[in-house]
Amino acid sequence: MRLTPLRVALLGLGSVGSEVARLLVSRRDELAARIGVPVELAGIAVRRPRPETHGLDPALFTLDPARLVARGDIDVVVELIGGIEPAKSLLTSGMEAGASVVTANKALIATDGAELHEIAHKHGVDLAYEAAVAGAVPLLRPLRESLAGDRVHRVAGIVNGTTNYILDRMTTSGGTFRTALAEAQRLGYAEADPTADVEGHDAAAKVAILARLAFGTRVSLDDVHCEGISAVTPADIAHAADENAVIKLLGVAERTDAGVSARVLPALVPADHPLAAVRGAYNGIFVEAEAAGELMFHGQGAGGAPTASAVLGDLVAVCRNRVAGTTEHHQPPAADLRLIPMDEVGARHCLSMLVTNRPGVLSEVAAAFGAHGVSLVTIRQDVLGAEATLTVTTETATDAAIGAVVKDLRSLESVRGLNRGIRIFGAGRGR
Amino acid sequence: MRLTPLRVALLGLGSVGSEVARLLVSRRDELAARIGVPVELAGIAVRRPRPETHGLDPALFTLDPARLVARGDIDVVVELIGGIEPAKSLLTSGMEAGASVVTANKALIATDGAELHEIAHKHGVDLAYEAAVAGAVPLLRPLRESLAGDRVHRVAGIVNGTTNYILDRMTTSGGTFRTALAEAQRLGYAEADPTADVEGHDAAAKVAILARLAFGTRVSLDDVHCEGISAVTPADIAHAADENAVIKLLGVAERTDAGVSARVLPALVPADHPLAAVRGAYNGIFVEAEAAGELMFHGQGAGGAPTASAVLGDLVAVCRNRVAGTTEHHQPPAADLRLIPMDEVGARHCLSMLVTNRPGVLSEVAAAFGAHGVSLVTIRQDVLGAEATLTVTTETATDAAIGAVVKDLRSLESVRGLNRGIRIFGAGRGR
Repeated sequence: MRLTPLRVALLGLGSVGSEVARLLVSRRDELAARIGVPVELAGIAVRRPRPETHGLDPALFTLDPARLVARGDIDVVVELIGGIEPAKSLLTSGMEAGASVVTANKALIATDGAELHEIAHKHGVDLAYEAAVAGAVPLLRPLRESLAGDRVHRVAGIVNGTTNYILDRMTTSGGTFRTALAEAQRLGYAEADPTADVEGHDAAAKVAILARLAFGTRVSLDDVHCEGISAVTPADIAHAADENAVIKLLGVAERTDAGVSARVLPALVPADHPLAAVRGAYNGIFVEAEAAGELMFHGQGAGGAPTASAVLGDLVAVCRNRVAGTTEHHQPPAADLRLIPMDEVGARHCLSMLVTNRPGVLSEVAAAFGAHGVSLVTIRQDVLGAEATLTVTTETATDAAIGAVVKDLRSLESVRGLNRGIRIFGAGRGR
Repeated sequence: MRLTPLRVALLGLGSVGSEVARLLVSRRDELAARIGVPVELAGIAVRRPRPETHGLDPALFTLDPARLVARGDIDVVVELIGGIEPAKSLLTSGMEAGASVVTANKALIATDGAELHEIAHKHGVDLAYEAAVAGAVPLLRPLRESLAGDRVHRVAGIVNGTTNYILDRMTTSGGTFRTALAEAQRLGYAEADPTADVEGHDAAAKVAILARLAFGTRVSLDDVHCEGISAVTPADIAHAADENAVIKLLGVAERTDAGVSARVLPALVPADHPLAAVRGAYNGIFVEAEAAGELMFHGQGAGGAPTASAVLGDLVAVCRNRVAGTTEHHQPPAADLRLIPMDEVGARHCLSMLVTNRPGVLSEVAAAFGAHGVSLVTIRQDVLGAEATLTVTTETATDAAIGAVVKDLRSLESVRGLNRGIRIFGAGRGR
């Protein structure tokens, strides 16, 4: 049994990296007890010479990450620089030199996870990335291990704190998307260029990772249908409240007999559903499995300390394996399950429209739904003099069917305006 | 690498056991893909000859579990008979014969977990029991692995579905404890003898297990302070509602600078806290860790299929280890942290009392709290003619201080009646 310390190369010293470094030093004894041997920082790669060393030995710092990961005496590379390159080359080179890898890099894992898993397998090392999805919330390990004897049907939830903060703010304090975004930026919840968050790209990367883990199939970032929240209006929020619901940006990975669907989109979540109670920058994820039923996980999805907690959890696991001379179980090669196009994905929908207030209009509108086989669950009419607002919710219908209904409604003279429809989230299979 | 099938001995064929057996057979191919080799049922120990074989090969059945576990060709013993003996002897004998063990037996693990871990370690086998706490909810693995690099301060939550159903029923439909218990028994949520559930013993076993895993210290069942819900009255429920709270039976394992506290007790949970939303027979558990912050886990805590999901997750993990020729990381030997006596445990409290409605009473009551250093947060007075009801909530105070206050209050002539106080649950350290 190995007794010499395990050597960690840390790439990146931002908010997560500096917290990881701090904990590696301040909890040295605890970590050694949990792993069986001590863990020591062997090097820290930073982008530019830093006067701020966070109290770490300045001799550890290097501007040459490629040399650090390849030097052959590194046991674990912890990658916290983000982005595809140079992260991918550095991790690859580290694994080729025999190091296991811990990363919080969702974009990289979503894009090249399958390839990196193969490299890890080939070199007999571990590749761990719990921190890449939902920060501190333990989600990947439960999916991969605790539910390994079960069949996961769906993983759905709030996996981006920035958009959840913005929608929460619009719901509780009113105001437009722009105002709420500015507030989020002021508080540090949103970046100066918020595109990746507000257009759903960040959530899509996490959904791709979740779909691959939950269903063992290849899902690339391009396979994830992605709608953001920049078009959500105060009127949409108010409509949701009328329906006793809130709007949340949901990431959904789902398996049905027809294949696998992966999507990110704003949806109506009923106010009494636990996901509706996920506030501010928190994450909340539902997992539905055949035997386990519905499980929910909730916690901080981002931030230096919470993400560092997940990184350290992975680091301990990877180090324990190294001490035991083993690696995590490698998943069987990914299958190629059919990816269901968004047109075929079923959901309940909510649509509202401004119509002429005269007899017969309701039946014209209802007929447009009926013509495409879409059943209505509720209809609410609010009369405003010569006009009326009609809000309808449907039974489960495909995007294609709803698209056809919307086309027909737009052609009706009595329909003056039609808002974008929004899908209604329901927990439980087939809902 | 091993290619012959792994052989499983199943002890017990009740609601969980029959579901485990069914899944082992029906998901044979999926399990083989996830583990790397097939898993086969080598024997099923039952208590009496059964005509009902659930479609399983009758040749697998035996009335002699001791012989089954000791026969030397068993890879994994799955124990689902419950209770201390003969379960303990059977698991010990199975491990001595080289088998790993998966169990859902909370009483056994709470009582003899440390000893069984030592036996497992000595014989180089695994001992897994995710199903013993919170059924399908992945909790032990995240605590042990995902949070292995963090410091857990508190694990608190609803870990008994029977009592949660009863309290939920009393809250939503009114009625007494007896009525709600009868309803729970009718629906199969409570047993004919409900003592273990309603007096908190079942929850206490889970808390003992959680405390040991979260803090790495010895906590026996006797160390867990235990109060049940049989004394909770409709008036208590109504009082809770007046405080915008609900009563929940909470299991709490907590570590402070003073040591470790483990307790089960009814508490006021603010209506907007996620634990208040845990309904019916569900379980919900909060974990507070230094870096990760607050995490919550929610799902079905009991029942054949959910518990079988957790058993199978453990079975897959244990089988993967067997294929890889390794075992789970064995925790360092348990420490002996100080167990904090209940008298020293701090919490906010809520007390209500019937007093004479005359000037000066409020100041007498307030003085009783002040005399023992207990600060008041809220005071509500409801006048009923010559009498009044006073409801007060306190800042954090120890059980000992509150006990002294109660003694003083009882000695006051103006205090006509005093209900049992109830602790107020707050998330976050020191609250």
